[in-house]
Amino acid sequence: MREFDLIKLASEIFRTKKEEVLAGAGEDDCAVIRIGNKNVLLTADSLHERTDFPPGMLPEEMGHMALAVNLSDIAGSGGKPHYFLFTITLPEEKLFKGILNGMANIADRYDVSVVGGDIDSGDELAISGFAIGTAERYVKQSGAIATERVCLTGSLGKAQLSLEQLFSGFSRDELTFPDKLFTPEPRVFEGIELAGHVSAMTDVSDSLAVSLNLISEKSGKGIVIEKSLLPLEHLTEFVNEEKALDLFLYSGGDYELVYTSKECTHGFEIGKVVNEKGVWLKTKDEKKRIEFKGYSHF
Amino acid sequence: MREFDLIKLASEIFRTKKEEVLAGAGEDDCAVIRIGNKNVLLTADSLHERTDFPPGMLPEEMGHMALAVNLSDIAGSGGKPHYFLFTITLPEEKLFKGILNGMANIADRYDVSVVGGDIDSGDELAISGFAIGTAERYVKQSGAIATERVCLTGSLGKAQLSLEQLFSGFSRDELTFPDKLFTPEPRVFEGIELAGHVSAMTDVSDSLAVSLNLISEKSGKGIVIEKSLLPLEHLTEFVNEEKALDLFLYSGGDYELVYTSKECTHGFEIGKVVNEKGVWLKTKDEKKRIEFKGYSHF
Repeated sequence: MREFDLIKLASEIFRTKKEEVLAGAGEDDCAVIRIGNKNVLLTADSLHERTDFPPGMLPEEMGHMALAVNLSDIAGSGGKPHYFLFTITLPEEKLFKGILNGMANIADRYDVSVVGGDIDSGDELAISGFAIGTAERYVKQSGAIATERVCLTGSLGKAQLSLEQLFSGFSRDELTFPDKLFTPEPRVFEGIELAGHVSAMTDVSDSLAVSLNLISEKSGKGIVIEKSLLPLEHLTEFVNEEKALDLFLYSGGDYELVYTSKECTHGFEIGKVVNEKGVWLKTKDEKKRIEFKGYSHF
Repeated sequence: MREFDLIKLASEIFRTKKEEVLAGAGEDDCAVIRIGNKNVLLTADSLHERTDFPPGMLPEEMGHMALAVNLSDIAGSGGKPHYFLFTITLPEEKLFKGILNGMANIADRYDVSVVGGDIDSGDELAISGFAIGTAERYVKQSGAIATERVCLTGSLGKAQLSLEQLFSGFSRDELTFPDKLFTPEPRVFEGIELAGHVSAMTDVSDSLAVSLNLISEKSGKGIVIEKSLLPLEHLTEFVNEEKALDLFLYSGGDYELVYTSKECTHGFEIGKVVNEKGVWLKTKDEKKRIEFKGYSHF
């Protein structure tokens, strides 16, 4: 995860002493700024055709995805998204309207206004998104408390399973979870409700393993995941147990939320926060490390 | 200027009825949102190696430029910039630190905090920037009042002259205005002061012709530029009079501000706002149209 080294470098270069910056570059899912009497959440995320868009993705779905990944960051901080801006690098002008319509649909669904953008031409289609939200109480990755539960808003591995099916020759109609691959929904409403009581939270964009390690490191706590608590049936119907576990822990693209709390009010429990550092997977016979890794879509 | 047709399409698709959105997508230099008790300005602008970075540009200068173009939009609305986020598409990791250092330097100079970013790898270097500012009074392109003066904060054509020198074989050391080409300074402080009294304003990024036509169209007024008021000596030392005028009116990259006001408190007067529609260049003998066109850097 070389990207995380670069993020650390950015955090050092851009360290700020402004007291209204409650969370700065690279610290969390979103930057948090105090403006007027509000906690304003800011996030930026970009998508590239070759690395982020599955083959056969429609322009509308690209537009959807550009908003979804940014809204998911706001959701991971427990915020309500309000505004979105974008920049697009367009190889073909005819894609433009579809992309914008896809953006407009998902924006409407979450009451987000798209208020600005910039358009350039270029060889590879790319969309950068910037989302702005607010939160009465925002949630960081760093607040996990030992003895609390680790909870997940929904099952994982669906986007990657569908992508691998696509690459193995399945048509779109034959995919098991096409919506998770082409139009994942960020957990915006869940994030806002969870902000009321959770101690730490983040979205699962790269992989559950990455998200758990971030919460663990930033909170200075350990996490023990109980293998018996991981629902794998939606995957073992198509792949063997080992592969299913791998997809659940190490694949991205599902955009669920993982959080720590006394109670799993949304979704289900997968483990516990402990004092002993590290992130572990516990089975009947052994306890082994969950490494800081995820595979991106491609 | 096909880009402006796409912006119009975006404005239609993203029209919002939220009353806190004081200016929306494509309406002006920045979107303006009411958050808490503040006018918050938002803008997004992207740069691509092939179309926006002159040959030989250093990574530090690319980082500088990414902030400069966005801060110039905030300046064009009369705002004070506060925060900046970016996304980078990196062909080579070794460029990263230089780009970030260039961002940090200009950000410090204008008291801007860089609070977030996203990094991806890709074939063509690209940087998207997203700036957030505030303004007690923000200035739109649409407020020009007939009989007022049209004013410019500084001379134009310098960036393009230097670029053409570069392409004709000059080394960096031999360029007439290298700073204008590699590290243009946005008119942030001037923009804030001007916001106190001007009726319309925008930055000159594409060309003076584009900026004047935008003010004219959005204000429903005409503009008459007096050729005798345009300072061309800094250009006629190197090119003939006709070419100099062309550079002044139709080239971009200098990031000055053009505004309408009773008085030209910053810079100098170049013409007047009139009731008769259209944008005109007046010489001793004739009055001819200034077309809506600009040439981008390349």
